[in-house]
Amino acid sequence: MIELTLIGIGTGNPDHLTLQAIAAIQEADLVLIPLKGAEKDDLAGLRRAICGRYLGPSARIAEFALPRRNSADPDYLDSVEHWHDAIAHAWQTEIRCHLPALSGKVALLVWGDPSLYDSTLRIADRLARELPVSRHVIPGITAIQALCAAHTIPLNRIGAPVQITTGRRLRDHGWPEGVDTVTVMLDGECSFQALPPEGLSIWWGAYIGMAEQILDHGPLTEAGPRIIAARAKARAAHGWIMDIYLLRRDPA
Amino acid sequence: MIELTLIGIGTGNPDHLTLQAIAAIQEADLVLIPLKGAEKDDLAGLRRAICGRYLGPSARIAEFALPRRNSADPDYLDSVEHWHDAIAHAWQTEIRCHLPALSGKVALLVWGDPSLYDSTLRIADRLARELPVSRHVIPGITAIQALCAAHTIPLNRIGAPVQITTGRRLRDHGWPEGVDTVTVMLDGECSFQALPPEGLSIWWGAYIGMAEQILDHGPLTEAGPRIIAARAKARAAHGWIMDIYLLRRDPA
Repeated sequence: MIELTLIGIGTGNPDHLTLQAIAAIQEADLVLIPLKGAEKDDLAGLRRAICGRYLGPSARIAEFALPRRNSADPDYLDSVEHWHDAIAHAWQTEIRCHLPALSGKVALLVWGDPSLYDSTLRIADRLARELPVSRHVIPGITAIQALCAAHTIPLNRIGAPVQITTGRRLRDHGWPEGVDTVTVMLDGECSFQALPPEGLSIWWGAYIGMAEQILDHGPLTEAGPRIIAARAKARAAHGWIMDIYLLRRDPA
Repeated sequence: MIELTLIGIGTGNPDHLTLQAIAAIQEADLVLIPLKGAEKDDLAGLRRAICGRYLGPSARIAEFALPRRNSADPDYLDSVEHWHDAIAHAWQTEIRCHLPALSGKVALLVWGDPSLYDSTLRIADRLARELPVSRHVIPGITAIQALCAAHTIPLNRIGAPVQITTGRRLRDHGWPEGVDTVTVMLDGECSFQALPPEGLSIWWGAYIGMAEQILDHGPLTEAGPRIIAARAKARAAHGWIMDIYLLRRDPA
């Protein structure tokens, strides 16, 4: 039996690790580390540093090239399904190679938390159809909380709801009904530009928790253009960017 | 200058502590521990256990009776404002007593994460109007993530939004527009009963992360009545309960 544990590692600050996460890393027999594109060095480097600090002496690290989603596929959900299939296949190859008896503890270090806009759990479900696998999740600090902590703000107004959504949704559907606070993730296009900026404030952060962290906030009319410029500049400098923001309607 | 740090400690499992949280506790000169009602022993006990493990030898712990919100006030937000004023005053009294030079590091151990349905940050803002205080937040594992981890489920569907809301909102406004997933917090009344249960599934948890943890999930038509009964029984047995649930529309 393979015991597969998805370990949330927080947003890039190694001190976001919980004691539970550290214990799970220490017990692992094999850690799978995906390598992808431009952020390869920084993100895989963080995972390697964490493994170097906590992994046991007999444990193995398997780095593998993360398959890419076919962004030419006009059906987004379909392209995601195929992509997850390909990743599950890559995991299976590594596990069969390093744990040929199909027994042991396999860990995946998941940026942020495994429950939030992350595919690892869905890929684990696919793997479980092919191999005898038990699945476990260890929660980690999300980018949402790290953003709020960095800005020293609450996520919600008192007793009020919050919507977590994506850049794509914000562009296609506008401001969500019934909420004054929206957190936007997976946004490569500063999709707040699709909204009329009057009466909105933004709290933005990039590389949150990392040494490269950048923060900005203010009325969207003023902070929006600053953020667009800062984001483009940082992305060019680092070769990749990971950012998140919270939008809030100003009090009436 | 008082350096006030709100430290998210997760949902009751001492291993939810992050390395960052532990470092902040180790550096504290004074830890404020509120005592309240029935959950007094269990929750304050967890905080005391954490302090006992990490607090420095010269640090002090100040336990104080948490003022209660006037639930007879028909204006909910007004009652919350007065309540927060009273808590800020209680903090100030403790700080002036234990750190009369108004200098040092004060820590508050916040259940879950300080950004999510928690008043500590708003009370800190009040305190900063009365004393020279710098505010800092250390993110912690939220009940939302701990719930998803315990059930081994993702929070969101692929690329889809999620609403975080309260029991009160669910009762007063019904199912929120535009989302298929809703996470409900601060719900003392199993407010899912206000919804037509057909076509909904629920993932519920109480005392998540603690030894007393209870989980249930299933179609709301079947799991709803089980959860109502289990919640009443557990609440009677422990004298208090803290629970959370996720509701999801079944695929069409």
